[in-house]
Amino acid sequence: MRRTIISTMMMPACLFFLVITQAHAQTSPLPSWNDGKAKQSVIDFVKRVTTKGGKEFVPVAERIAVFDNDGTLWAEQPMYFQLAFAFDRVKALAPQHPEWQKKESFASLIKGDVKGVLAGGEKALVEIIMATHAGTTTEEFDNIVRDWLASAKHPKTGRPYNEMIYQPMVELLRYLRANGFKTYIVSGGGVEFMRPWVEKAYGIPPEQVVGSTIKTKFDIRDGKPAILRLAEIDFIDDKDGKPVAINKFIGRRPIFAFGNSDGDHEMLLWTAAGSGARFMSIVHHTDAEREWAYDRKSSVGRLDKALDEATAKRWTVVDMKKDWKRVFAFDK
Amino acid sequence: MRRTIISTMMMPACLFFLVITQAHAQTSPLPSWNDGKAKQSVIDFVKRVTTKGGKEFVPVAERIAVFDNDGTLWAEQPMYFQLAFAFDRVKALAPQHPEWQKKESFASLIKGDVKGVLAGGEKALVEIIMATHAGTTTEEFDNIVRDWLASAKHPKTGRPYNEMIYQPMVELLRYLRANGFKTYIVSGGGVEFMRPWVEKAYGIPPEQVVGSTIKTKFDIRDGKPAILRLAEIDFIDDKDGKPVAINKFIGRRPIFAFGNSDGDHEMLLWTAAGSGARFMSIVHHTDAEREWAYDRKSSVGRLDKALDEATAKRWTVVDMKKDWKRVFAFDK
Repeated sequence: MRRTIISTMMMPACLFFLVITQAHAQTSPLPSWNDGKAKQSVIDFVKRVTTKGGKEFVPVAERIAVFDNDGTLWAEQPMYFQLAFAFDRVKALAPQHPEWQKKESFASLIKGDVKGVLAGGEKALVEIIMATHAGTTTEEFDNIVRDWLASAKHPKTGRPYNEMIYQPMVELLRYLRANGFKTYIVSGGGVEFMRPWVEKAYGIPPEQVVGSTIKTKFDIRDGKPAILRLAEIDFIDDKDGKPVAINKFIGRRPIFAFGNSDGDHEMLLWTAAGSGARFMSIVHHTDAEREWAYDRKSSVGRLDKALDEATAKRWTVVDMKKDWKRVFAFDK
Repeated sequence: MRRTIISTMMMPACLFFLVITQAHAQTSPLPSWNDGKAKQSVIDFVKRVTTKGGKEFVPVAERIAVFDNDGTLWAEQPMYFQLAFAFDRVKALAPQHPEWQKKESFASLIKGDVKGVLAGGEKALVEIIMATHAGTTTEEFDNIVRDWLASAKHPKTGRPYNEMIYQPMVELLRYLRANGFKTYIVSGGGVEFMRPWVEKAYGIPPEQVVGSTIKTKFDIRDGKPAILRLAEIDFIDDKDGKPVAINKFIGRRPIFAFGNSDGDHEMLLWTAAGSGARFMSIVHHTDAEREWAYDRKSSVGRLDKALDEATAKRWTVVDMKKDWKRVFAFDK
């Protein structure tokens, strides 16, 4: 202690400031997490892989952390938010598409009958996604997403959808980056639906967002190069698609993976199968009061096999109700 | 001057070292480039976009620079190096594939008759690529590429292929990164053919390599998760595929693009069409002595339309013979 005081006194002011900042970061890295096994397992892992000279040390370049988005970084109830976007978009575009009145799922939607739409199954949903996500340039689509986020409100909380992000996870992303990790989203959601807002929400830049894609086409439009969004699926970044996309986009195996549903199972398995220290974790939605409680029987974000796997392999299962002091930043 | 000396004397040793390093970097950023228009245009551009408070200043996060690989960062004559890899691989695998003796292009290749192979056209080449690039796990393929680079020699120089990289471009990549740029490869070459060696060669990490891909599949093999390479083309990252891939993988429009052939034309147009300061450049192969001289009529790396465009739009055309002091690091 004495030694610290003496050397501190001899430090230039700028370095002294640095020491204070670091000390602060070290004492309270995850303020919205309750003390307990889950929080401790994260802190222990980060310490193990960042301790120089330690036998589990991982160089900065290989500290790749991947996060699912829906249900892991932001909420996904009562329906995936991108679906809410698509539904709102059908209503907004309906006046320009009189032919939609004759299509059952579109007509149901315009009347506000969501159950009628869902009765149409996957085929109806894909039609709706394509009608609302294609036919524009990439720049136009970016603006459409931004405009929607600026006006749409979540049906339960009345908040903009991009405020329904989990504060403990935002802190975790920051904590990992402060420890040299590169944080990625690897989501079943559309990559161009996420990029307009995730940088501000999570501090994750566009080039670190991996997601589902529709085909696009380079074209010259009014003498100007443009990229057009086509009504054809390119890639679904879910289940066994996730490790495939991680390999294609990142080209390194993550050492840290976080999900919340069976759609993340293969990504977690792929991460776990690498050599050296690994961290796999699942957000378990157990909080019916502050958020939602659902798992094995949910049609949205079903968590069944991956929960068994996590339990068997002692991955970190985050109990939202118990482990999180706050869920959203707007919680008291 | 006096002020500098005094403040330098008061500096801690570590900061003094920093000042020296920076001063050195500022005086000679591109030692293998001859003084002239090309070199100056790069330095001017970098100064414009990095000058704080300047009207063309670009924030670090948006300093995206993209580089073609074949003919831009490394040589591509007498044939694309990845094709040399595929041909060598056919020969290595031939004993395990007696059926290849009955396939014309494969049989020609095994006999060393490259012209006979090329006579088979694109169809024959795709067959050869698929036979040599698929059927392994991604990890096995990574090792195969590394082994090939460790043993194969270029027919003209007798050097390992990964020594046939352009020293002036390696310096340019370093110079850009030192100025806050994120450097990407955007190549027609296979992404998993490049990733094993480009980090050491160019300082470009795997996650900043965009290229052509074959389809892959997640599977459990002997109880262990693996990603298998399938004999099916996923995406060709050439011509109008390049802006499409940039949009998909990076999600930001580059402000700096470097190519050498008509395959880079659309990437250059896409870069040029953004707002604010832009830098577009082409390596023109004019040096038959130290490298090769080819452009409008070459079957490898044809440069025709993009050369007209570059001239008309005053993009920077690098004349290899005139602008580069050295081509390869092993040149005197």
